[in-house]
Amino acid sequence: MKRFLFSIALACLSLAAVAQNSSQQEQLRQMMRNQSRTEVKTMHSKILNAERQYTVFLPAGYEMNTDQTYPVLYLLHGMNGTHEDWAGRGHLKDVMDQLKASGEVCDMIVIMPNAGGNIYEEVWNGYFDMDGWAYERFFYEEFLPTVEKEYRIKGDKANRAIAGLSMGGGGSTSYAQRHADMFCACYAMSALMHYPAPNPSGEKNKMWHMLTAANKYSCVEYVKNADEKTKEALKTVAWYVDCGDDDFLFEYNIDLVLAMRKAGIPHQLRVRDGAHTWEYWHSALYDALPFVSRTFGK
Amino acid sequence: MKRFLFSIALACLSLAAVAQNSSQQEQLRQMMRNQSRTEVKTMHSKILNAERQYTVFLPAGYEMNTDQTYPVLYLLHGMNGTHEDWAGRGHLKDVMDQLKASGEVCDMIVIMPNAGGNIYEEVWNGYFDMDGWAYERFFYEEFLPTVEKEYRIKGDKANRAIAGLSMGGGGSTSYAQRHADMFCACYAMSALMHYPAPNPSGEKNKMWHMLTAANKYSCVEYVKNADEKTKEALKTVAWYVDCGDDDFLFEYNIDLVLAMRKAGIPHQLRVRDGAHTWEYWHSALYDALPFVSRTFGK
Amino acid sequence: MKRFLFSIALACLSLAAVAQNSSQQEQLRQMMRNQSRTEVKTMHSKILNAERQYTVFLPAGYEMNTDQTYPVLYLLHGMNGTHEDWAGRGHLKDVMDQLKASGEVCDMIVIMPNAGGNIYEEVWNGYFDMDGWAYERFFYEEFLPTVEKEYRIKGDKANRAIAGLSMGGGGSTSYAQRHADMFCACYAMSALMHYPAPNPSGEKNKMWHMLTAANKYSCVEYVKNADEKTKEALKTVAWYVDCGDDDFLFEYNIDLVLAMRKAGIPHQLRVRDGAHTWEYWHSALYDALPFVSRTFGK
Amino acid sequence: MKRFLFSIALACLSLAAVAQNSSQQEQLRQMMRNQSRTEVKTMHSKILNAERQYTVFLPAGYEMNTDQTYPVLYLLHGMNGTHEDWAGRGHLKDVMDQLKASGEVCDMIVIMPNAGGNIYEEVWNGYFDMDGWAYERFFYEEFLPTVEKEYRIKGDKANRAIAGLSMGGGGSTSYAQRHADMFCACYAMSALMHYPAPNPSGEKNKMWHMLTAANKYSCVEYVKNADEKTKEALKTVAWYVDCGDDDFLFEYNIDLVLAMRKAGIPHQLRVRDGAHTWEYWHSALYDALPFVSRTFGK
Repeated sequence: MKRFLFSIALACLSLAAVAQNSSQQEQLRQMMRNQSRTEVKTMHSKILNAERQYTVFLPAGYEMNTDQTYPVLYLLHGMNGTHEDWAGRGHLKDVMDQLKASGEVCDMIVIMPNAGGNIYEEVWNGYFDMDGWAYERFFYEEFLPTVEKEYRIKGDKANRAIAGLSMGGGGSTSYAQRHADMFCACYAMSALMHYPAPNPSGEKNKMWHMLTAANKYSCVEYVKNADEKTKEALKTVAWYVDCGDDDFLFEYNIDLVLAMRKAGIPHQLRVRDGAHTWEYWHSALYDALPFVSRTFGK
Repeated sequence: MKRFLFSIALACLSLAAVAQNSSQQEQLRQMMRNQSRTEVKTMHSKILNAERQYTVFLPAGYEMNTDQTYPVLYLLHGMNGTHEDWAGRGHLKDVMDQLKASGEVCDMIVIMPNAGGNIYEEVWNGYFDMDGWAYERFFYEEFLPTVEKEYRIKGDKANRAIAGLSMGGGGSTSYAQRHADMFCACYAMSALMHYPAPNPSGEKNKMWHMLTAANKYSCVEYVKNADEKTKEALKTVAWYVDCGDDDFLFEYNIDLVLAMRKAGIPHQLRVRDGAHTWEYWHSALYDALPFVSRTFGK
Repeated sequence: MKRFLFSIALACLSLAAVAQNSSQQEQLRQMMRNQSRTEVKTMHSKILNAERQYTVFLPAGYEMNTDQTYPVLYLLHGMNGTHEDWAGRGHLKDVMDQLKASGEVCDMIVIMPNAGGNIYEEVWNGYFDMDGWAYERFFYEEFLPTVEKEYRIKGDKANRAIAGLSMGGGGSTSYAQRHADMFCACYAMSALMHYPAPNPSGEKNKMWHMLTAANKYSCVEYVKNADEKTKEALKTVAWYVDCGDDDFLFEYNIDLVLAMRKAGIPHQLRVRDGAHTWEYWHSALYDALPFVSRTFGK
Repeated sequence: MKRFLFSIALACLSLAAVAQNSSQQEQLRQMMRNQSRTEVKTMHSKILNAERQYTVFLPAGYEMNTDQTYPVLYLLHGMNGTHEDWAGRGHLKDVMDQLKASGEVCDMIVIMPNAGGNIYEEVWNGYFDMDGWAYERFFYEEFLPTVEKEYRIKGDKANRAIAGLSMGGGGSTSYAQRHADMFCACYAMSALMHYPAPNPSGEKNKMWHMLTAANKYSCVEYVKNADEKTKEALKTVAWYVDCGDDDFLFEYNIDLVLAMRKAGIPHQLRVRDGAHTWEYWHSALYDALPFVSRTFGK
């Protein structure tokens, strides 16, 4: 149980105002560092030939307990989104703080990469390798190794999970399908599990590239075409599919679930009330974070 | 807010013990009559040439407010079940009392017919007309008119809903599909929405009859084959499909939902955690009863 | 069931981009007007000698159904907040849209007044009359009559509810206590139900004024001191107290509930997991809006 | 995900019917032993000079995994209840099976002792030592050592929790208060946390003895009178207080919570909708079982 004096933010503001000398200010900085928090970092990618930002959630005590290592959740945004979405509209830190207070989540680090931006202004979107933008290579060869070295992340399958919404839900699922040896759990929200291939002779804009990749890496086809060895690998991941009854991507999520049922791959499915909205994704965190917490370390 | 002295049942026992003369006992009887309660009745069916029992839930105050008429919910049991299931393992009265106390349901009468028994001992099961057992005719020609006369039931579409589990979920849905002018709402739990036709040359036991009828009155096929006029009729009913992610009837429920999405018929879908169990159906009441309450009178 | 094309916002942006002539743009404007929406308005207060802003939520169809009148919910912010909080961090429109789609709320107008701002910069905060700032007089004599004339609000007790968080939860409760003839329902979140009187000889800053008023209009004392007639009046309002188990105002909320239990005034109480946070208040909307909806018109 | 063929019970019945020879019947017995199940046992108590029954829940696989040891939950019934209540009206096995399937609980053994029966027929009720019925001595000296030897129970504080309803909620809390070195978690539902002392010169019936003990071992007074060392001990237990807003024992639960807040002892509190009913306690299992699961082994 944690009490708040009107609000911690206010309390801190007040403290800042009265911390008149440098030793007090140092004390204040230390106190705030001991809270959970998010920070934004930048790294250079040779593969993409671009700077890439990412947001990191660090649990309370991260800077004090310097011997402790943590499980990690990769949390992916949707089309037109960026690394800032989950911390902003998703209120990730607020949800995590509440679930930590009640014991429903363990301490974990959350990494929110950037695989998007305004697609209508021709910003690259998507978690897969596309012609001229090898995002997936970047993710596995540059991004993941960098952040897992930068932060005290355990770095084994049993302590690495992935989740995401819409385009990021499809990305999460496909990543965990094709790297079942790397992730212990995958929670997909309103996910782009599949999409019809765009016209091959259509205009090759960023939307065309993104949808072409979504079709190529169809999560549904992956399960349908899985051989026995692949099915066994898929059974080592804890799967969770969460999609609203008013979602325009509902059918693709159901296609995946039906394929998984047929293939005998255990999974959780929830269809809650709602559409392709932030209300849905924000509330999904209350299931997703405990779900990955329960899976970590097993 | 209603307080309980350890339990109303105990209180009543104690009162009964001390109600020493007939006028006190009369008072006690009146007090108890004013609580919500269930009762079991019997009627003779000429169509079935059999006695049929049914359970009735009456809201608190039913016997006092003799001018008041009520909306009605028909609540159907599953295969091998009887009219006693919802009042027994379903704890209908307890759920209703709690939802009434918090204002989430309105006063309603619930009618629980008997369309079953041990099918392995060759008791007739099912809500449809079968060769030698015209249950559906009985329901519409004898049962519904009788109970709606016997109790102060409003008796119009806007105040008549239907719900049920498994075989009774399929029964509810099919009844509301083919009598869309009679029901304002339908809540189906873990429903037998369809079933493959049994071998026509198989043994004609009660299971064969039940499954043959479930195939003939397939809720999925009904929507797939609906013409525009039928679709318009279907749009006048508030539909709710509720099926667990571990239910063995999951695929048929999804088939219905996909058909309804394609046909543009609004509906609610929930897939919660669980299988074909009473835990699922009991908890479904907490959604089903408010759902029909909100629909009544609109 | 309502489908979204990635997001309505995006769809509208796209439409706006292609609406090349004025008749198309007019069509677009009409379509958007038919969605639910929030707008910010300003009125001049003679009593306060100041301009006051307020935010209004209008249900879908408001501008089409020009004959329809609506129930109203007054939704109050907390200390340091403004009229923008519920529409912003509270995501009111998103929550309302989802609850409307599932039928859990009726169409209503929500009025969000401004009774705050940064109290540490000496902005007036509070819903009560304070020395030099007669906010409550403004509310009843100027604000409520103005907005209920400006919008098609039914304007009777049976169709007027009030709710709020923290300072606004205390404001809501006190308003509904002392004007039980005006409000049918009151939903208080993490409410400032009472506060110890500040030192009378302390610095008379805005915080002093606010807390002094919170003590003077203590919701707890009001119930404790209520005579029989007042208790009868209080029984005509549907009360809902919602406070987190980690809230620093918990004790005052409990004091109110204990007083109401003792006085025999029916009410709902929920203590959920959480503290004095927006996660708590945002999720409270999912209970508050259906609660007032169920009460309207009864 | 686990599929059910109409119902496992039916499947087993069918299997039993066809298991015509002894080797088939042996196979069937083994299959059923591998399901989760409850069993009723009897032991003789020298202290009470009586036979005492108890119900035991064993997780799936208990008889196969003969090297595995398990955490244990003691689950206590209320006044007038017996060891059969949680397995019967509480549907413990059904709830546990569902929560196990979704991963929300770990495998555990649940021990349900008998401390009651019809108190109006002068059966001893209560978990404390009473004049002539030293139940608490029996519990700690005979019962707990016996069952923890009989079953493969880990038997340390980190893997022992206690929970109960009403009289059993007070019993759970008092046991965990006075034996904080033995229990890691305590979940109290609608608990008899305190009761006014009955008239010392009243009739010394079983109700008098039970209430006298409830007063003597008041959980509220225990916290109020706790010295610093006791408070430190109390902080080693994870406390959960769950009481309905319509419960007649509400005030005593709140008294305990207020005392714990004052003493700085962390705890969870939930006030949900409901009264002193099985609907409340059954639904509480969905919070209680995951709560103790999360605490085990920490």
